[in-house]
Amino acid sequence: MCSNSSANLTRRSIVRAAIVIIAQQGLDALTAGRLIEQASVSKGGLYHHFRTMAAVETEVLELLTQTVLQEVKSSEQPASTEAFFDLVEGQLFKCFSVDNLSIKALFGFLSASAHNKERQLIIRRFMDEIALIRLEQLKRVSPHLSHMELNAVVQAIASLQVGLVARYFLAEDLVSLRNYWACCRKTVVVMLEKCERRSRASLQQRAVGQLTNAE
Amino acid sequence: MCSNSSANLTRRSIVRAAIVIIAQQGLDALTAGRLIEQASVSKGGLYHHFRTMAAVETEVLELLTQTVLQEVKSSEQPASTEAFFDLVEGQLFKCFSVDNLSIKALFGFLSASAHNKERQLIIRRFMDEIALIRLEQLKRVSPHLSHMELNAVVQAIASLQVGLVARYFLAEDLVSLRNYWACCRKTVVVMLEKCERRSRASLQQRAVGQLTNAE
Repeated sequence: MCSNSSANLTRRSIVRAAIVIIAQQGLDALTAGRLIEQASVSKGGLYHHFRTMAAVETEVLELLTQTVLQEVKSSEQPASTEAFFDLVEGQLFKCFSVDNLSIKALFGFLSASAHNKERQLIIRRFMDEIALIRLEQLKRVSPHLSHMELNAVVQAIASLQVGLVARYFLAEDLVSLRNYWACCRKTVVVMLEKCERRSRASLQQRAVGQLTNAE
Repeated sequence: MCSNSSANLTRRSIVRAAIVIIAQQGLDALTAGRLIEQASVSKGGLYHHFRTMAAVETEVLELLTQTVLQEVKSSEQPASTEAFFDLVEGQLFKCFSVDNLSIKALFGFLSASAHNKERQLIIRRFMDEIALIRLEQLKRVSPHLSHMELNAVVQAIASLQVGLVARYFLAEDLVSLRNYWACCRKTVVVMLEKCERRSRASLQQRAVGQLTNAE
């Protein structure tokens, strides 16, 4: 029992050390030598827990996506469209925090995932799960929108966030990024309101039609 | 003269071979050994042209950004807002073409650039130049918008494109990507029309005010 929990501790410290290396120096800087040094484990210790460096990378990517997903999941259900966008904005701006190692490390996987089906699968599942949470949140505050309209908005936001995070790591200044987001938020809200009005009007028209038919 | 042009040819073939490797296998697959094999040059030949592999990577990145920039520059001035978005759309969808080695290789640089100031600078300059071209194009077809409004639209489009291209390389299916873009395009057009109407109205109001004052 004791040895088991100590083994778990070693495994976790290896994964944590890998995250630090990837976040600070990039994925290609993650070598067995650096990992042994950073995690203060022996070579035998490392290979006891992970047969290959690819296995370390996969476990790191799984952990990173789960960490971010938990954060997104743990937020309260927003009570209005405005609150929904505040929530999305808050979570986006957290990515721009200099001490956010998880997002930094996650970004390190982006380019490398273009050539690795396993990683693509993990990242896509992660994005799908976030989209699903956002969809449910938006549905409750914009109940008149169709599923297609809701999904279009959620996916537009997701694409935009990926783009803004990428630009952040290309050293785009924060003031500009905040401006770009603010403009996009305003744009999406305008579109959302337009859709809501149209949906409500068509619902009313249908109700009037049914009343007329009943008479 | 002859030897000079033959040297240039070797240099170009090294760079071209590097692009193929990065596009097909990722940036971390670019080793001296693979490059020598792919370019059919000797080790001496490679190091005669490039002192380090980092020098190869920088020249590749410079060439890739110049190639894409030339394409964007060479397009005709669109005659309407609709034509402007058609142009942007056409150039975006070109990125989704399976045989587009330039974009594939460029994407390979994304994650790695987060830890390399020189590469960040090249990519940011590239994005700034594209934004400038788009700004000029949009200004001509939406002359009533302020510089700030034009820039907001251009930067929103740029962020979105980066996000969509990233999602493409994470194996998002093309039909979905086209839908996301279509939704965003519609959204931006709605916002643009709203801005245009407001700007025109305020211009008219000012003109009326001036007439009243003159009377």
